[in-house]
Amino acid sequence: GQRQGQWPGAGGHWPGAGADRWAGIGLGQGWAGVTGRLVSAGCCPGIRVRARWRPAGSCPSPSSSSASSSRWSSPRPLAPRSWRRSTAAGSWSTRATGSGEPRQGRRGGGPGVRPGTQSPAEQLLIVRANSPLEYPAQGVEVRPLRTILIPGLSLQAASRKLYKVTLIATLGTFDVAAMVEGVKAQGEGETRLSLLATQLDNLNRQLQFVTYTNTLFHPNTADTVQFATDGHQASFTIRIRHAPTPKLYNPGTPGDDYNISALVTIATKTFLRYDKLRALIASIRRFYPTVTIIIADDSQHPEPVGGPHIEQYFMPFGKGWFAGRNLAISQVTTKYVLWVDDDFIFTPRTRVEKLVDVLEKTSLDLVGGGVREITGVTTTYQQKISVQMGGEEGDCLQTRQGYHHLLEGFPGCVVTDGVVNFFLARTAKVLEVGFDPRLSRVAHLEFFIDGLGVLHVGSCADVVVDHASKLKLPWQKSESEKQYAKFRYPTSGDSSVSVKHGLFYFKNHFKCMTSN
Amino acid sequence: GQRQGQWPGAGGHWPGAGADRWAGIGLGQGWAGVTGRLVSAGCCPGIRVRARWRPAGSCPSPSSSSASSSRWSSPRPLAPRSWRRSTAAGSWSTRATGSGEPRQGRRGGGPGVRPGTQSPAEQLLIVRANSPLEYPAQGVEVRPLRTILIPGLSLQAASRKLYKVTLIATLGTFDVAAMVEGVKAQGEGETRLSLLATQLDNLNRQLQFVTYTNTLFHPNTADTVQFATDGHQASFTIRIRHAPTPKLYNPGTPGDDYNISALVTIATKTFLRYDKLRALIASIRRFYPTVTIIIADDSQHPEPVGGPHIEQYFMPFGKGWFAGRNLAISQVTTKYVLWVDDDFIFTPRTRVEKLVDVLEKTSLDLVGGGVREITGVTTTYQQKISVQMGGEEGDCLQTRQGYHHLLEGFPGCVVTDGVVNFFLARTAKVLEVGFDPRLSRVAHLEFFIDGLGVLHVGSCADVVVDHASKLKLPWQKSESEKQYAKFRYPTSGDSSVSVKHGLFYFKNHFKCMTSN
Repeated sequence: GQRQGQWPGAGGHWPGAGADRWAGIGLGQGWAGVTGRLVSAGCCPGIRVRARWRPAGSCPSPSSSSASSSRWSSPRPLAPRSWRRSTAAGSWSTRATGSGEPRQGRRGGGPGVRPGTQSPAEQLLIVRANSPLEYPAQGVEVRPLRTILIPGLSLQAASRKLYKVTLIATLGTFDVAAMVEGVKAQGEGETRLSLLATQLDNLNRQLQFVTYTNTLFHPNTADTVQFATDGHQASFTIRIRHAPTPKLYNPGTPGDDYNISALVTIATKTFLRYDKLRALIASIRRFYPTVTIIIADDSQHPEPVGGPHIEQYFMPFGKGWFAGRNLAISQVTTKYVLWVDDDFIFTPRTRVEKLVDVLEKTSLDLVGGGVREITGVTTTYQQKISVQMGGEEGDCLQTRQGYHHLLEGFPGCVVTDGVVNFFLARTAKVLEVGFDPRLSRVAHLEFFIDGLGVLHVGSCADVVVDHASKLKLPWQKSESEKQYAKFRYPTSGDSSVSVKHGLFYFKNHFKCMTSN
Repeated sequence: GQRQGQWPGAGGHWPGAGADRWAGIGLGQGWAGVTGRLVSAGCCPGIRVRARWRPAGSCPSPSSSSASSSRWSSPRPLAPRSWRRSTAAGSWSTRATGSGEPRQGRRGGGPGVRPGTQSPAEQLLIVRANSPLEYPAQGVEVRPLRTILIPGLSLQAASRKLYKVTLIATLGTFDVAAMVEGVKAQGEGETRLSLLATQLDNLNRQLQFVTYTNTLFHPNTADTVQFATDGHQASFTIRIRHAPTPKLYNPGTPGDDYNISALVTIATKTFLRYDKLRALIASIRRFYPTVTIIIADDSQHPEPVGGPHIEQYFMPFGKGWFAGRNLAISQVTTKYVLWVDDDFIFTPRTRVEKLVDVLEKTSLDLVGGGVREITGVTTTYQQKISVQMGGEEGDCLQTRQGYHHLLEGFPGCVVTDGVVNFFLARTAKVLEVGFDPRLSRVAHLEFFIDGLGVLHVGSCADVVVDHASKLKLPWQKSESEKQYAKFRYPTSGDSSVSVKHGLFYFKNHFKCMTSN
C-alpha cells in the first residue's frame, strides 16, 4: 500500500488545514485514480516514486458515502432511487455549453453538429520544447467574418538553404498584408498558407504581415491553427466572437453623495401581506422619498398600492416566490437593484449608500446586509458554496456557514458565496443568473447556486434592516397571517420540497448535498 | 503614398469580394495604422516591403465619415453634438468585463481593484522558440480553492550537472502529489516551487506530480504561472472558476412527435387590443389546446383574459414594449419560448414542431419564421448585424438585410443575426440576453444587437404565421385601433426615438450606424 512519504532533509510538510483542498478536479478523475495511475504507469523503470495520499478526514469522495470528517456531515443523496437521469433522447438535456460552440462542418454548410462538444478554446494544448516556432499561445481574437493581423509569429531555425513555414486553419483563411522581397507565398486567401525564403530575416519580416480572416460564420467559437516547419508543429487558438455588448446604466447627475434614486431600484415580492408591505414602503419613504419601488404581487385578491415611484405588477394567484423575484428584476432600469422582503422595515441603520459604495469601488457583483430580528439578533446568513464534481452520476453540493476572507478597505464586510435576502446587486449580473420561476415556495440559496462562477458576493454586517416581528403565538395571528403561513410553510406532503430537490437533481446535476 | 502591390510570379491576388472583411480589429487599431507602422517600423534594414492597402470601396473607417461604398450608406452619427460620453466618475460606467475578474491584491486581502481590467486569460502570451520548457498553453482549469495536477510539464534541456526548474504563481500554491527519488523540492505548499535533480529523467518524472491549489478566493478569474529554468522562462494560464451551473429543462415524456406543451411556452405582450389578442388565442388553441400562453399586459383598463393554460400579468399602464417582453420571458418554465405578437393568427402552416426540430437538432439558439401579411407577402426580416470597432469615440453598428449561409439539413432555413418577431428560442439564452425595459416603444433589432456573440440565430421561411390585417384607412379604424396607433407610432416629438438612440450611444457604445 502507499504511505505518507517525506523526503529527508527537504523540510517538506503536508499542506496544512483545509481538507477539502485535495478534492480537486484532477483532470476530471478522482485523486487516487490519477496519482495511482501515474505512479504505476510503468514510465521510467528504475525511478522510485512514493505517492502521497489525501490525509484522513478529507472530503467525501463522490463514489463513497461512508467517508466522513469531523467538519462535514455525510453527503445526503438528493434523489430517491426511483429517479433516474436518463441520457436518451427525451431526457433533460442541453447542458449549457458556455462560450465556444463546436467546430462547424464543411464550407458553406452550417452548424449541423450536436450540441455539447468542448470548445476548441478549452482544449488542452501542450507547448513542445525545443521548437524553432514562435507564436501566440493566448490572446488572439477576431470578430466574426473580420480580419486580423496575427501577432508574434516567427521562425528561429538553425541555418539551412531554404526556410519554409505553413499555416493551416479550418474556419478561416490566411493572407498577407504586405509582400516582403525574397519571400514566396503559396495559398494567399486560402485555408493553407506557405511562406518560403532563403534568408531567415526576410521570412520573419514576412511573418509580421500574416492575416487571418474568419470565413465560416459563427457568433462565438474558436479556430485551432496549425503552425509548422520542417520537423516541428505547433497549435494555437484564435477566438472568433463578437465583442460582448456592454450593459451600461445612467448613473444620474454626480453630486456630493450617491444619487440613490438614479442608481437603485428597490424590488420586492408580496403575497397577502398588504399591511406589512405598506409599513415597508412607509419606512423606505422616510429615507428615500423618490426611489422607485417595484412590487411583484401574486395575491389572490390584489389591492392596488399607490403612490409616486411605485410600480406594482399583478401575477396569477400563487404563481410563486422565485417567479415573482424574476418578474421584479426583469423591470429594473437602474444600475443596481436592492432586494428586500415585504416584511422588512427600514431604519437609520439601513444605509443603502454604504452598499452602493462597496459595489462602486470593488469588483463585487452583490453585497448583502444584515436583517435584525425582534430579539435583537442580526442575521447575515453568510454561506460558502462549492460543488464537488462527481462524474456521470452527478455532483455534490456543499454549503457551509461562513466567509472566504475580509473585504479589504471595508471594515465589517467579507467575501462569501450566499447571503441573506437583503442585498444590493448589479442589475445586469442578477439578470444574468435569474430566479428560476419553477421554485414556488421554499427557495433561497438556489439563486446563489445558480450564480456560482457568475456572482462575486460580499456581505456587510453593519448595514441593517429590521424584520417585522414574526414571534406571535398561533392564536395571536391575524387571519391574513394564518392564510400566509398556510402557503409559506408547506407541509411535508407539499410538492414544493420535492420540486426543489428535483431541480437540484435534474437541472443542476447534483446527486448529494452536505452542509453544516 | 501606398499602392496596391503584387509579387511578380507569385500568383497572388487580392482577396475577393467582401470589402467589409478588411475592416478587422487589427489588434484594436485601424488597418492603415498597424500595417503602416509595421512597414515603417525600421526593423531589418535592407529588407524591402510593399504594403497592400484596402481596396477602394471598403468599409467606412470610424474616423472618416466620407468613405463610402456602393454597398453601404454613409454612417449615420447617433449622437447630437450636445451628448457627451464622459469618462469621469459619475459617467456611464461598468462595461461588462465578461468572465475573468482582475487579479486580486495581497494575500488575505480581497478584490479591491478597479473594475474593467483585462483578465489574465485574455492577455496576449507569445511562446518563445527554442526553449527547453514544455508546458500546457491552454486548457488548465481548477475550481475555486481546489487542487489539480498540472498536465504536460517537462524539461528537455541539454546535458548539464544540475537541472532546476521553478514555478511561480500569484493566486495559489504548488505542491507535489508524490516524491521522486533523486529530486529535491523547495517551497512545497508555497507560491514558488523549485525542483532540483542531477538526472533529467528523475526531474521529469517529478514534474508529472506537481499540483496547483487556488488559495485566494475568486469565483471566476485566472492565474498566470511563470515556469522557468536557467536562461529560459515561459508563462501559462490556469483558469480558476466554478463549473458553469447547467440550466436544464424537463422535455416531457417522449413520444412519436415533440410534446409541444411540455417543451414550449408561447409568450406575447398586449396593449389595448383585446379583440386581436382573443383572436390569436383562439387560433393557437385550434392546434395547441394545452400549450401555456403567457401574456404581459400594460393596458390602461385591463381586461382579464381567462382560460386554461393562460397566464396574464398586469403591468403599470404603458410601461412599455420591451419591459413587457422581459416580463413575459421571466415567467417561462419550459425549455423553449415562442414569441408572437398579439395580432398574429396561427394557421396550418404555423408548424411549431418544425422550429423545435431545428433547435433540437442543431446548436442554434433561436430560429425565426415568416409573417404573412394580408397582401400575401411573407416577411422573414433576416438581418445581418456587425459592429465595427471605433476606439474611445464609439463603435459603428452595421445592419444589412440577408443571411450568412444556408442551414445544412434544413431546406428553407438559413443562418443570420436578426429575424422577425415570430421566433422560437432556447429560454435560457433569451434570458441571458434579455429585453431592455428602457425601450418602451420603437424597438426590434436591439434585442439581437444585445445578443451578439450570445445568440446563434436561424430563420426558416416555411413556418408561417398570419398577421391580422393592418391595411385600414384612418377613418375605418376603430376607437381602440386609433388609441393604439397613438401610442404605437410616436410622433417625431416623442422621446422614445431619442431614448433608443441614447441607449445605442451610452449603453452599447455606438457612435454611428449604417444599414441598407
